[in-house]
Amino acid sequence: MLSFEHIFANFALHVNLNAEEQTHIQSVLQYKKLKKNEMLLATGEICRNLYFVDEGCLRVFNRDKEGLEHVVLFCTENWWAADMTSFSGQVPAYYNISALEDTALFYFSYPALEQLYADVPKMERFFRILAQNGFSLYQRRVNSIISRSAEERYLQFQQLYPKLEQRIAQKYIASYLGITPVFLSMIRKRKG
Amino acid sequence: MLSFEHIFANFALHVNLNAEEQTHIQSVLQYKKLKKNEMLLATGEICRNLYFVDEGCLRVFNRDKEGLEHVVLFCTENWWAADMTSFSGQVPAYYNISALEDTALFYFSYPALEQLYADVPKMERFFRILAQNGFSLYQRRVNSIISRSAEERYLQFQQLYPKLEQRIAQKYIASYLGITPVFLSMIRKRKG
Repeated sequence: MLSFEHIFANFALHVNLNAEEQTHIQSVLQYKKLKKNEMLLATGEICRNLYFVDEGCLRVFNRDKEGLEHVVLFCTENWWAADMTSFSGQVPAYYNISALEDTALFYFSYPALEQLYADVPKMERFFRILAQNGFSLYQRRVNSIISRSAEERYLQFQQLYPKLEQRIAQKYIASYLGITPVFLSMIRKRKG
Repeated sequence: MLSFEHIFANFALHVNLNAEEQTHIQSVLQYKKLKKNEMLLATGEICRNLYFVDEGCLRVFNRDKEGLEHVVLFCTENWWAADMTSFSGQVPAYYNISALEDTALFYFSYPALEQLYADVPKMERFFRILAQNGFSLYQRRVNSIISRSAEERYLQFQQLYPKLEQRIAQKYIASYLGITPVFLSMIRKRKG
């Protein structure tokens, strides 16, 4: 039996849905499970769904010309995940998304969500606020990368993702911070 | 006589507004002019308005602990500008915004825009799509900073802001790219 508790608590942050609207949303929401390391989206594919992480953790990353992976974002419980450019325009994705742990996801397909905006206009509001918050998050992240030391970025990471360090491999955190795993380990020793 | 041409062309990218809706939007839109170097928002103030650049160019930046300025974004004609975190939550701003040229702006105040979402629901849709696009833009920018060379970032800057280099001081472009003005000048010579 699926529990819609987390995702509806998430909706309730920004909109009040009545019983009828909730039932309708449940009827179009889909659900899937991923095993650790399973890919959800690969660069070049079209991102056909917008995902909500009910359990587990996703990693959004890309590979540079040298094949080196760069983590742009972690999406843990209660985060929404997609390659937004790809999803919004239904064009090929720039990013890869994979599971760092066994992960359970709710998701809306692109056509289902477009229809939902018409059927439940409050969802338009919800995703407007969500996108604004995502925008803010990235604005801060750009700023943090160009103006903060690796140590400060590490502290910001800890605040943004409480306890995530105990769950995933250090190399992913180093990649997110834009430093080497050796340097990350030095920072952690200094802090400890 | 104000021309609403650019801003309504911008709305038309994502929503179809009828004559009545257009008249209503015009009645709540405000307008202001800034002189070159004039401040629009300072860190710590509440960002009370969401701006549309009708003419000119804004610079969104912050100062680090050493007092060094970092340009996060340029907003030229047809861009929207705000400290989104500050505007959305009506909390103190992290960023400064100032004019790099004489600049003309349309803007919505926070309460006017909240009311407008209720009066013209299509605006909710417009700003949802706008925020999603902003989100995408920043996602790319994070990626570009962590995985591209300064030269590649310079080319991306030229694509994103056609002809802007001829309009503003080089130090701002260097700051946006996260490099020194001397290094920027070296890159430009190599390209030329």
